[in-house]
Amino acid sequence: MHYLAIRAAIHVASVFAIYLCFAMLIPAAVDLYAGNPDWQVFAFSALFTGGLALAVAMATQGRPPVLSSRFGFLLVNLLWLTTCMVATVPLYMSSFDLGIADAFFEAVSGLTATGGTVLTGLDHAPPGILMWRALLNWMGGLGVIAFGIFVLPFLNIGGVSYFNIESSSTDERPFARFSTYVFWMIAIYAALTTACAILYVTAGMGGFDALTHAMSTVSTGGFANYDASFATYNDRPTILWIATVFMFLGALPFSILILFISRGRLDALADPQIKLFASYLLAFILAVAIYIRIWSDEPFFFALTHAAFNLTSIITTTGFASTDWNAWGPFAIACAFVATFLGGCSGSTTGGMKAYRFLILFELLANGLRKLIYPNTVLSVRYGDRPVADDTQRAVVLFIAAFFVLWAVITVLLSATGLDLLTAVTGSLASITNVGPGFGDVIGPAGNYASVPDAAKWILSFAMLLGRLEILAVLVIFTPVFWER
Amino acid sequence: MHYLAIRAAIHVASVFAIYLCFAMLIPAAVDLYAGNPDWQVFAFSALFTGGLALAVAMATQGRPPVLSSRFGFLLVNLLWLTTCMVATVPLYMSSFDLGIADAFFEAVSGLTATGGTVLTGLDHAPPGILMWRALLNWMGGLGVIAFGIFVLPFLNIGGVSYFNIESSSTDERPFARFSTYVFWMIAIYAALTTACAILYVTAGMGGFDALTHAMSTVSTGGFANYDASFATYNDRPTILWIATVFMFLGALPFSILILFISRGRLDALADPQIKLFASYLLAFILAVAIYIRIWSDEPFFFALTHAAFNLTSIITTTGFASTDWNAWGPFAIACAFVATFLGGCSGSTTGGMKAYRFLILFELLANGLRKLIYPNTVLSVRYGDRPVADDTQRAVVLFIAAFFVLWAVITVLLSATGLDLLTAVTGSLASITNVGPGFGDVIGPAGNYASVPDAAKWILSFAMLLGRLEILAVLVIFTPVFWER
Repeated sequence: MHYLAIRAAIHVASVFAIYLCFAMLIPAAVDLYAGNPDWQVFAFSALFTGGLALAVAMATQGRPPVLSSRFGFLLVNLLWLTTCMVATVPLYMSSFDLGIADAFFEAVSGLTATGGTVLTGLDHAPPGILMWRALLNWMGGLGVIAFGIFVLPFLNIGGVSYFNIESSSTDERPFARFSTYVFWMIAIYAALTTACAILYVTAGMGGFDALTHAMSTVSTGGFANYDASFATYNDRPTILWIATVFMFLGALPFSILILFISRGRLDALADPQIKLFASYLLAFILAVAIYIRIWSDEPFFFALTHAAFNLTSIITTTGFASTDWNAWGPFAIACAFVATFLGGCSGSTTGGMKAYRFLILFELLANGLRKLIYPNTVLSVRYGDRPVADDTQRAVVLFIAAFFVLWAVITVLLSATGLDLLTAVTGSLASITNVGPGFGDVIGPAGNYASVPDAAKWILSFAMLLGRLEILAVLVIFTPVFWER
Repeated sequence: MHYLAIRAAIHVASVFAIYLCFAMLIPAAVDLYAGNPDWQVFAFSALFTGGLALAVAMATQGRPPVLSSRFGFLLVNLLWLTTCMVATVPLYMSSFDLGIADAFFEAVSGLTATGGTVLTGLDHAPPGILMWRALLNWMGGLGVIAFGIFVLPFLNIGGVSYFNIESSSTDERPFARFSTYVFWMIAIYAALTTACAILYVTAGMGGFDALTHAMSTVSTGGFANYDASFATYNDRPTILWIATVFMFLGALPFSILILFISRGRLDALADPQIKLFASYLLAFILAVAIYIRIWSDEPFFFALTHAAFNLTSIITTTGFASTDWNAWGPFAIACAFVATFLGGCSGSTTGGMKAYRFLILFELLANGLRKLIYPNTVLSVRYGDRPVADDTQRAVVLFIAAFFVLWAVITVLLSATGLDLLTAVTGSLASITNVGPGFGDVIGPAGNYASVPDAAKWILSFAMLLGRLEILAVLVIFTPVFWER
């Protein structure tokens, strides 16, 4: 790793930090408008951190380095870490009186669009901090999409990038300019958020809640403005259904949405990962709805609404809850547990293992079983009707192996801080997959992360970043070869 | 699949069933000697089942089929299933008054050397049934070794076979005749058992308990003659240490032990999987011992004894317990949970994921991370100083993928029978890995499987067989291509 590359990475990260400081002016304005003195916290954070970031940015100015994959890995790690640290500042100084571990956890949970929280008393929180949390989710979600579409394919750990595949042949390349593509990405993301907010309002949600909840819905972030999360809206099933639809949309691959919306390419929707994602989502919802209908003897529409909302929330790794599903009976809980692994599509706002990995994995498994019987058959691994490159196959296998190894390691580390087995196992899982809430009384949908020890909060923050960067992009930083000159 | 192959497989399975019926005469003799009327159960089972098996064997006699891998898969599945069914008969008819699900669970747990039990009141059980359980463990353990050494490499799902590797060059081939090799395998297994029994007696165990416990120790089976398992011997730490040593020996690769003992090949012990297995075993024991010393304020020797015994029991997938380690504090419990995955060496009596798979997996992971930085480097996957064949690499990856998918599926199925999340998650895990006891109050080391519903017992029995046959050997049976003509 060359000194100039490190300097250049710091430069880019500090420029992003400045943008984030500008974003702090939004909650400042909100609090000022509401007559809440917390506006000073955001204004001061913006000025102080922004000034610091500006100084660093100016000190590290220079020629941009050659774009190597090593520089890419360094940059994404630094970028996520810096923005999380900057986002921590106003949370730490806020009227919530958080410790540094709590504030950092909340910032990481926000920007990684995880959605686990350490805050209680949200119902009476000043609007500025609620807006800041929603903004973190929203900006984080956009960052995740950009990361998935542009960065992961470049770093060779991403899996399926349509942009990448299509740009290889000129007549298939739908966008002449990169900036047009970025414009469409942001426009669609913003349009989805606006549509969600408008629908929330028409369904009876207040304007401020509608906007902030729309931001944490479309980003599949999961921060809510109430301690009870979406249970606040249990008397308005329409709101739960709107949220369900927009969480689903946020979990779709944005490269596909862009092709579909900007170019009317209906064929793009035939992506195999969308089919698989929609299939397992539907299967889990129906299984749990029927089970709740029988187990709890609730009306079927009630069961279906809550099954759809909560399973979609888990599978899209959002983290909202409309009820304490820990009380739904063993089968529903086990389904929710398994659903925690799944995730949505690549190039979306979701975390987890993701549908395209399962597609490639099942193809590998089926081929492997066939080869046990006919050892000499040559079988290619296919994704839809395209062959999957060896690199991509290897990346899928490595991700899954690393996923389970790190899950075990983080579980043991968490237990060393005193967390019980269920909390440690599901807390590490829900963090690596960026779902948010875990299982059991402590960190389940009826609890939150406030009561876990500080050491556990640091470990969980690391786990969320690890999951957000698809694990391998973080692990590679810890190899000696990465730091070779 | 040809009709003649199925017939031939049934023939071999029924011959094995006849052997197993002869084995029933041992507990019959024990009960007769003890003056217990249960001898009739064993005698009747032997006669009735043996007669039936003889009839089938005679009806299916014919020319042996060509040894194909398909025939191999069919045979091992049928063999394990048949012997489990035959072993069920005397358990079902015994004075324990078991239902068919309980009897089958106990037989499968015995023959797969898992060690989970549905029996309570073992302390006052007639000696015949205790001998039968020990015999099932012992014969099952031998079957597992033979399966690992001879069958898995032939079926291409096994991983590392020294017999296979060494026989490829003539001057390295240590055994001229197959039967000599089998003789050494059985002789070493029997010698280890005898040595263990003698040491148990010298440490103060009664003769009958010493023999039966030696059988379930060396086989890493885990059936004990007391409801409290090895907690009965808590006042005699020597017994716990003897068990620890012989569980460890049972978890070593028998192909290596055979080379070492019969040919004095000290170099064989330098096998990388032995090093890794011994390392993680030691690391877990020391970590937990130090933790118990601090957490429970017990003397260090006490902590070390119980950590060594219980962690060795879990990692070698035996299933004995000397105490309810669910009361050891969160870190020790999480270590025990992670230890449940590990397993010992290939070609041993243990289950779990096994050390050689981790070696290959870490090599794949390290190579993959290096390739992210230098995409064009060509790296070979090595096991010690030998390159690992592509087939073996693929088998490792497929095993791990199938392991986690089935773990999730079986967890959901178990929860549908009403088991809580912790019981379902750890019950399926402890069955697939053939460890035996799970976590929590129901199936933890202080409980047993008696209280779980019958449906769960059937599912768990299937999971134990699945794990015992290294998953892929069972899965392949369910593919359409397997049944093609």
